[in-house]
Amino acid sequence: MTFALHERLEADTIFIKDLAHSRVLLMNDSQYPWLILVPRYEDLRDLHDLPSEKLAEVMEEIRNVSEVLVRDFNAFKINVGALGNMVPQLHIHVVARFENDPAWPGPVWGAHPAIPYSKEEISTLRVSLEAAIRSGNH
Amino acid sequence: MTFALHERLEADTIFIKDLAHSRVLLMNDSQYPWLILVPRYEDLRDLHDLPSEKLAEVMEEIRNVSEVLVRDFNAFKINVGALGNMVPQLHIHVVARFENDPAWPGPVWGAHPAIPYSKEEISTLRVSLEAAIRSGNH
Repeated sequence: MTFALHERLEADTIFIKDLAHSRVLLMNDSQYPWLILVPRYEDLRDLHDLPSEKLAEVMEEIRNVSEVLVRDFNAFKINVGALGNMVPQLHIHVVARFENDPAWPGPVWGAHPAIPYSKEEISTLRVSLEAAIRSGNH
Repeated sequence: MTFALHERLEADTIFIKDLAHSRVLLMNDSQYPWLILVPRYEDLRDLHDLPSEKLAEVMEEIRNVSEVLVRDFNAFKINVGALGNMVPQLHIHVVARFENDPAWPGPVWGAHPAIPYSKEEISTLRVSLEAAIRSGNH
């Protein structure tokens, strides 16, 4: 298995951890707690390119990070999206939404230019997310 | 099980068929072949509200309709999104995207006002989608 993260995802995100199937990244946009899961398999473009068993397990990884966003960030709503119109490598957005966030109730994609975190914020978030996201699925 | 479709989804879509878990709706917007799956269970808001087994099976229903959009509509890319910021009832968008569609490469949500289908187009699409989307999961 050769997995290489797309350069655009590499540039826009912060590495959090590798789960059994997906790499978990934090979008470097302080406007929303925004995670991205990238299944670490070659040549995936759409969600339905994942075989059934892997798709089910990736969805459990989405559940895992969604629950962290609800519990630790007090998310009002979770938005899950697999778009990939700009970056062809399959990646799934899992975004904590709030009724007072800058894009509410619209989608976050394309809404506002990213506002990067400070170095201190990144250090803190990396540690807390790494700890909060369980490495196993269950 | 009491299932009632949210009135906003009722107003904006055309009924196609009920699968084992989800109701399949066609968004009444002729700009994109755009399906919506609504798991027919009460009180679901986020994807992670579905228990694991049902989530896996709903994902197979998403695969089912995604493959129809690729095969019969020649979709260039499938966008899958569970947002629900405006309509709280869990519903999953499965949208066929094209490099020349009006919102490309941005998301379809909130991009342009819907352009409804004609009655004739609706009749044709209803018949063809009803036939193309398999009732079983496999």
